[in-house]
Amino acid sequence: MKLFFASDHAGLNLRRALIDHAVSLGHEIADLGPETSESVDYPDFGNKLALALASEPEAHGVAICGTGIGISIALNRHSHVRAALVNDVTTATLTRLHNDANVIAFGDRVIGVETAKDALTAFLNTAFEGGRHQRRVEKLSPTS
Amino acid sequence: MKLFFASDHAGLNLRRALIDHAVSLGHEIADLGPETSESVDYPDFGNKLALALASEPEAHGVAICGTGIGISIALNRHSHVRAALVNDVTTATLTRLHNDANVIAFGDRVIGVETAKDALTAFLNTAFEGGRHQRRVEKLSPTS
Repeated sequence: MKLFFASDHAGLNLRRALIDHAVSLGHEIADLGPETSESVDYPDFGNKLALALASEPEAHGVAICGTGIGISIALNRHSHVRAALVNDVTTATLTRLHNDANVIAFGDRVIGVETAKDALTAFLNTAFEGGRHQRRVEKLSPTS
Repeated sequence: MKLFFASDHAGLNLRRALIDHAVSLGHEIADLGPETSESVDYPDFGNKLALALASEPEAHGVAICGTGIGISIALNRHSHVRAALVNDVTTATLTRLHNDANVIAFGDRVIGVETAKDALTAFLNTAFEGGRHQRRVEKLSPTS
């Protein structure tokens, strides 16, 4: 699986740790930054990730800011993105099963690195359940 | 503060508990349903809450589904909504300070009722910090 990573300055360290983890699991990664801890605006990097996913619809994304909330809102402004803010393996698994989420979001100041790694692994290893959930997912991105 | 409440069937019990809590704190509430535990689609109730907030921009919203993720995605499709999925007082406080969130979202299957009540209280009692956060919030809802 191709994975795009983006964060704001607050998510720099967790982003790097999760990139290493994804590489160790054998995934192809593309890092959208930022490169330094200089203050940036989370919507800019959320939008950058949304743009990357528009160009490669089969890829998934990993997004991080201080709480994970701001960058998730920015991502979910885009109808092709379903960004799920998760806190653990349970929510990472449920959001793949039920929401077919294509972005997993974390709060760097909220979650520990090992918990985030396990959640990312679960997210990547869980398939969408379909069924009644398909109709709900379609309602998130109306085509008309 | 006027508060609109909406959930899916999975969020029925937590919604009712949080309505009682908000009333006890002296807030005016409007309950958008659903009324029974019959299965419904979270995007429908997320969209209903977004519509209510469009008509009353000074009000805030409380949204609940199983994980809180699906209804948050539905809400954040709307540019006038900043829906924050929270897990505790810390994230509820930070999202008011930094994101000026106007909807607080919970996962009924994720958070306990007393933790959710405390988070809602913190959300309602915390003002937006402005400053550098104002620019970021504006980028979430471009006017052009």
